Amino acid sequence: MHIDANDLPQQIVRALQQVCGQGPVALHEPRFSGQEWEYLKACLDSTFVSSVGKYVDRFEADLAAFTGAKHAIAVVNGTAALHVALLLAGVERDDEVLLPALTFAATANAVHYCGAIPHLVDSSEDSLGIDPQALRAWLGTTARREGGVCINTRTGRRIRALLPMHAFGHPCDIDGLLGVAHDFGLVLVEDAAESLGSWYQGRHTGTFGLLGTLSFNGNKTITTGGGGAILINDSALARRAKHLTTTAKLPHRWSYVHDEVGFNYRLPNINAALGCAQLEQLPGFLASKRHLFERYREAFSSIPQVRLVAEPQGCTSNYWLQTLLLDAGVEQRRDDVLDATNTAGMMTRPAWELMHRLAPYAACPTAPLPVAESLARRLINIPSSAGLA
Amino acid sequence: MHIDANDLPQQIVRALQQVCGQGPVALHEPRFSGQEWEYLKACLDSTFVSSVGKYVDRFEADLAAFTGAKHAIAVVNGTAALHVALLLAGVERDDEVLLPALTFAATANAVHYCGAIPHLVDSSEDSLGIDPQALRAWLGTTARREGGVCINTRTGRRIRALLPMHAFGHPCDIDGLLGVAHDFGLVLVEDAAESLGSWYQGRHTGTFGLLGTLSFNGNKTITTGGGGAILINDSALARRAKHLTTTAKLPHRWSYVHDEVGFNYRLPNINAALGCAQLEQLPGFLASKRHLFERYREAFSSIPQVRLVAEPQGCTSNYWLQTLLLDAGVEQRRDDVLDATNTAGMMTRPAWELMHRLAPYAACPTAPLPVAESLARRLINIPSSAGLA
Ligand SMILES: Cc1ncc(COP(=O)(O)O)c(C=O)c1O
Ligand SMILES: Cc1ncc(COP(=O)(O)O)c(C=O)c1O
Repeated sequence: MHIDANDLPQQIVRALQQVCGQGPVALHEPRFSGQEWEYLKACLDSTFVSSVGKYVDRFEADLAAFTGAKHAIAVVNGTAALHVALLLAGVERDDEVLLPALTFAATANAVHYCGAIPHLVDSSEDSLGIDPQALRAWLGTTARREGGVCINTRTGRRIRALLPMHAFGHPCDIDGLLGVAHDFGLVLVEDAAESLGSWYQGRHTGTFGLLGTLSFNGNKTITTGGGGAILINDSALARRAKHLTTTAKLPHRWSYVHDEVGFNYRLPNINAALGCAQLEQLPGFLASKRHLFERYREAFSSIPQVRLVAEPQGCTSNYWLQTLLLDAGVEQRRDDVLDATNTAGMMTRPAWELMHRLAPYAACPTAPLPVAESLARRLINIPSSAGLA
Repeated sequence: MHIDANDLPQQIVRALQQVCGQGPVALHEPRFSGQEWEYLKACLDSTFVSSVGKYVDRFEADLAAFTGAKHAIAVVNGTAALHVALLLAGVERDDEVLLPALTFAATANAVHYCGAIPHLVDSSEDSLGIDPQALRAWLGTTARREGGVCINTRTGRRIRALLPMHAFGHPCDIDGLLGVAHDFGLVLVEDAAESLGSWYQGRHTGTFGLLGTLSFNGNKTITTGGGGAILINDSALARRAKHLTTTAKLPHRWSYVHDEVGFNYRLPNINAALGCAQLEQLPGFLASKRHLFERYREAFSSIPQVRLVAEPQGCTSNYWLQTLLLDAGVEQRRDDVLDATNTAGMMTRPAWELMHRLAPYAACPTAPLPVAESLARRLINIPSSAGLA
């Protein structure tokens, strides 16, 4: 069958309708079909809705069990998790932190909150995450190791950490990145906000770096209303994370002594109650999202200018957001596709604006970004709720 | 009757038991006797538990109506509210902000988050808040106005803002503080975390400054699990507050452009649902807390070395935390009182450690603190839940 490029937007609308029905269909909706109600009620009845409570403890234990991290510290959202993870990684004022230009603004914002500077690097078309080869080549021309510390030779600043992000739930090339981090003396911190339920070579994303972070925002695979967590294998670091996120108060029967500047980044017990119920359903959500991927694959198989992003080799993706990549030859149709699909009630969206295009980060050190620029022109997220499968 | 000072702790235990029963009695417990249940269920059923939703809008409208502020912006907690309020007040890196030494650490922490430096000042025994006379005298010797800007002549830094706190719900001397702020060119921001339901000369606390902040932590008069709000009369400033607290994303059908470094300080809709139900009960809670004050006054009337703190003249306090002040002559018994009461299952606690005694703030500019030091030695909070009345 000959494909008329002018028809592409309508072809995509029809493929989406074939899988999702007539709509309107949201990009990602939560599903509360488990014990949410019971746990919320128990939480309210206990009156422990706030900073401490058994659901917080249980949610942390359940997250650790699910991810295989030694410790999980529940916090108020994924942005707060990143902020504290970077502080604990030793990121200080005027340091630089390497992160993908292709990410949500929170990744860069968290670096800014530390008084540090995002240093933006390119992604790979395979994983949609930081490309280790390109990163190594870039650092080879702009950084040098000096007494165990990585220095940006152009800015003179220390590059402290490498902060990859597992985009739309697809694990990035962690082995490659661990190699670069090792060779250049960088601390690895993983922004796993989108990848709860994603594994790289059998190990959960967010557990490879010194610290990893999750988000339970309403648009994520599971939600606590708002929430996040820090994954940590080092027990001393985990104690520091708990301390810093709970106002750094020293335990005492009655006195209020704080030994450093802490944060009120606690996840309320009532949000944790929701989280416990959602986590019980996560295996089911993951199976549904994988099934949805198969159905989309089928539906899009007849549109050769479009590729549905599949999990990278050796990885299990959570398929948080299903992603289409237009061929470069039809990338100028992207906005027509977005317009046609949204007009038809099928919610879709492009990639985030690349970080170096945002006013607050326009002046940040930036590697060449040929792949990220191309991905940003061609990428479209399509409806991805577990309930669609 | 002759009072044996050695008996003081037991006398206080008995007075508490007379009002509260045998215990154990918490310092402050929330009460969920309204529509909490219904609203939580409706919120869950709508699936809008996260960043946007009708309960957030309603909670903001209800808060504005209750306080008389033109705008209320709901945020994730009182600490986040303070952080953003200070940023919007123009507090910048290396500025100083005047705040009471007698406060919870969050007041100082929020200043630190802006890269600014807390400048600690004394309190008054009448209101437990900043003493305007002492502040004026102190600034007279350490600050000078220079082209509309207040400069600390010792540190050379700009003093940008005055951040009073309404301690335990008692309004501080706002007229006096507005006078000092005017004369020295300071922006007034009120930490009203503890004073929802407290009025100064008929106007709600938190609505006198350019911005004011509330907390709905689990220990406050009403709770959302965790939550806070910014009260603002200026509409342009309120729009900026909403923008900054919601990641500074520009509204668009699909694109993700952020025009400045924003924060994820949104209050989730599910927490706002709780807040709507709690706010409906606030008038009842306030009446109960006032009644509890009357019962304590009666019970403590026979212990002359102890004064129960009453609302300042011209003010209506919410009586968030009931407060005893020991006479200076028996202040060395404070820890015995804390020990006896807590051992008897009546939860009590002293004032917060004064800010200049905390390691992170020990080096901050600090006025003489004779009253705050004395209050900190003599002050004891006693069980204060609305449910005790
Ligand atoms: C890549 C990435 N990082 C960080 C975050 C921040 O998480 P949250 O929204 O829970 O603050 C998100 C999600 O919004 C995200 O997608
Ligand atoms: C005086 C004062 N300021 C700020 C806060 C911070 O509020 P939150 O705990 O909601 O962050 C509190 C309450 O904890 C407080 O008592």
